[in-house]
Amino acid sequence: MSDPTADPAALPADGLAEELAEEALARDAADPLAQLREHFVLDPATVYLDGNSLGALPKAVEGRLADVVSREWGRLQIRSWEESGWWTMPERVGALVAPLIGAAPGQVVVSDSTSVNVLKAVVGAVRIARQDDPVRDELLVDAATFPTDGYIAGSAARLTGCTLRALAPEDVPAAVGPRTAAVLLNHVDYRTGALHDLPALTAAVHAAGALAVWDLCHSAGALPVGVDAHGVDFAVGCTYKFLNGGPGAPAFLYVRDGLQERFDSPLPGWNSHADPFAMAPDYEPANGAVRGRVGTPDILSMAALETALGVWEGVRIEDVRAKSLALTDFFLRCVAAHGPAASAGGSVVGSAGGGLSVRSVTPVEHARRGSQISLLCDPAERAEPVMRELGARGVVGDFRRPGVLRFGFTPLYTSFQDVERAARVLGQVTGGTR
Amino acid sequence: MSDPTADPAALPADGLAEELAEEALARDAADPLAQLREHFVLDPATVYLDGNSLGALPKAVEGRLADVVSREWGRLQIRSWEESGWWTMPERVGALVAPLIGAAPGQVVVSDSTSVNVLKAVVGAVRIARQDDPVRDELLVDAATFPTDGYIAGSAARLTGCTLRALAPEDVPAAVGPRTAAVLLNHVDYRTGALHDLPALTAAVHAAGALAVWDLCHSAGALPVGVDAHGVDFAVGCTYKFLNGGPGAPAFLYVRDGLQERFDSPLPGWNSHADPFAMAPDYEPANGAVRGRVGTPDILSMAALETALGVWEGVRIEDVRAKSLALTDFFLRCVAAHGPAASAGGSVVGSAGGGLSVRSVTPVEHARRGSQISLLCDPAERAEPVMRELGARGVVGDFRRPGVLRFGFTPLYTSFQDVERAARVLGQVTGGTR
Repeated sequence: MSDPTADPAALPADGLAEELAEEALARDAADPLAQLREHFVLDPATVYLDGNSLGALPKAVEGRLADVVSREWGRLQIRSWEESGWWTMPERVGALVAPLIGAAPGQVVVSDSTSVNVLKAVVGAVRIARQDDPVRDELLVDAATFPTDGYIAGSAARLTGCTLRALAPEDVPAAVGPRTAAVLLNHVDYRTGALHDLPALTAAVHAAGALAVWDLCHSAGALPVGVDAHGVDFAVGCTYKFLNGGPGAPAFLYVRDGLQERFDSPLPGWNSHADPFAMAPDYEPANGAVRGRVGTPDILSMAALETALGVWEGVRIEDVRAKSLALTDFFLRCVAAHGPAASAGGSVVGSAGGGLSVRSVTPVEHARRGSQISLLCDPAERAEPVMRELGARGVVGDFRRPGVLRFGFTPLYTSFQDVERAARVLGQVTGGTR
Repeated sequence: MSDPTADPAALPADGLAEELAEEALARDAADPLAQLREHFVLDPATVYLDGNSLGALPKAVEGRLADVVSREWGRLQIRSWEESGWWTMPERVGALVAPLIGAAPGQVVVSDSTSVNVLKAVVGAVRIARQDDPVRDELLVDAATFPTDGYIAGSAARLTGCTLRALAPEDVPAAVGPRTAAVLLNHVDYRTGALHDLPALTAAVHAAGALAVWDLCHSAGALPVGVDAHGVDFAVGCTYKFLNGGPGAPAFLYVRDGLQERFDSPLPGWNSHADPFAMAPDYEPANGAVRGRVGTPDILSMAALETALGVWEGVRIEDVRAKSLALTDFFLRCVAAHGPAASAGGSVVGSAGGGLSVRSVTPVEHARRGSQISLLCDPAERAEPVMRELGARGVVGDFRRPGVLRFGFTPLYTSFQDVERAARVLGQVTGGTR
């Protein structure tokens, strides 16, 4: 796309725009997931392509929250810890997340934020690795990671006496070695949308005798992860992106079955005690996923998440993935058709004219693509005003520094017509076509 | 009370019960805080004395939550991080908590659970103490602490290479010394309701050159704490007890002004970065209370808490304390009047008869009493069925092993009539009077 004039099909030829609009209609009509959109609150005047930052509101959440507040908290009060099942929500909601990431029951708990769970997972992994081989004193982390993961990995390294080395995920197989305790990787790069090869990287980490910790924030609910199938050791992820749990909904933690009894958490709270209400002075960890809990769970957010996960009933993640790839493929075609030609001197509406080009930094190969498309603007400083203008015209995406326009595609509610419209408006804003 | 027959005034004499009921009416009529009760959802058929476990629902929360879900999340979606002020909620809500614990602005943030905040505070305190004097390698903790604090203190000790010693708070002045890095204490003992001497203990810790970390879970919102006035270094506390923030509402963290720039958190998340949206690979901590943040805040729970704190507008914590002491004094008198006489062979309804006595393990002196009364049952195994029967009769308290009946008094909504009725029903259940 950096030079669409090289590809005649990408030219904004008369008729092509209409063809794409017709194609979008036809594909929505044929989409087996199309009716899921009805479960969400969506503004018909807006195309929402920011579900990879905050998922849209599932309609059922409104009633559930009202009930949790008025009846469970207001009327039942303290009794709700038992009668409304509050106490067991972290593992119950974890059980709803489990199948979406390919985990058999009993390995996922919902608790705390992703950042806090990264600390649990990384320290937990290092401790296990060192129990097997005390010489292991190195942590590897994805150099392009979402910042929190890097900061927390640094803290975990410091707290456990490890060194931390940042590197590109593709360099992990060559770098991982007998000194490596654990490797923290992102399944999908939050900025570029690149999907890393979880099975191969996990196998490489294991071949070196280290443990693999995966951050699934941008893949859980977007594509099949297969944590069990690929032998992932620890995984964390957030629930307010493709799982639509609501702003700041609690994150999940996966600890594989074979490691659970060895999981030695840096956050041993009373909620993960084998007998919490004994309120014993000595910590004796519970077995199973519950061991990942810490303090009192935030019930309001957890209830919203539980209800949001109800949308997934009967939905196959493979079908979601197929639609995700179809949506992103279609978006790339529409952007190429409508987008600014670098040579055509497209200008940003509302800024001081001049040439603007965009090119996708998201891999073209399906096997390497998450559920987003990131378009890098040249010049980079145009990206922020472009995204602002898109918003003003009803197309919501995300701006990520330095110059990335980030569009997320949530197959549960994103339609092909959404995609076509977003690309068309992007073309208008960047001065490409009509 | 262990032997009420020794005190003629404590006998369930004819007429005394009626006098106490009349007194309750009169005191409610004269209570300057009485109208605050109108802000809460309360069942007239129930006396709720478990606000020290889960505070009652403030009426305004229902509307606020509905708005946060439907409009802020549902309609504004991602824009709410700015437009609805979501991003700054942790420090904004912290600013509402601050005056209740005697903190000047800019020192309190609301984030994560109490347990997670204990880790931040204790590791943060140890690091500062050791920076000043590397020889300090000992952590002291209240032996009767709420279990999480002890478990997390143990984890903090292990992660920082300290030893952990548990001791009674009154033994701290003799035990704290040149090797002590930090001391973690509870302001009010969750089981007995004993109020520890925060000013004197903090001074003793400081005299030894160590840092004082206070857990205010059972004092925040119940009595004046004066963290600034007494030079407390770090404090944590929960917001779902006397602050009525809702089940699992996020906890607060106080770091005193003079230490903030030295606060080196074990949980350095992107939310506490000086420039979070730079998404820089290197962590550069923000200044001020924000440094205590970690990951994305749970907005639904935070919004409920923010609204709940609105009830405090114009309320003086000193008035709350005065009423709290009046309520607990009155409860003790009513229990003495109605309660089971150890020598009278009172029996637990629903259990197999026999003698039952209760005695308060909460200090009688005002200066040593929190906002709860804990009655120890003899025999201890009667406590749980007694509390169950109380609940069936509309009096809600808490059972804590081995044999404690725990009653919490929230001056914002607990009335003197509540207190009188609770004691009367307790007397019936334990076979004391009528």
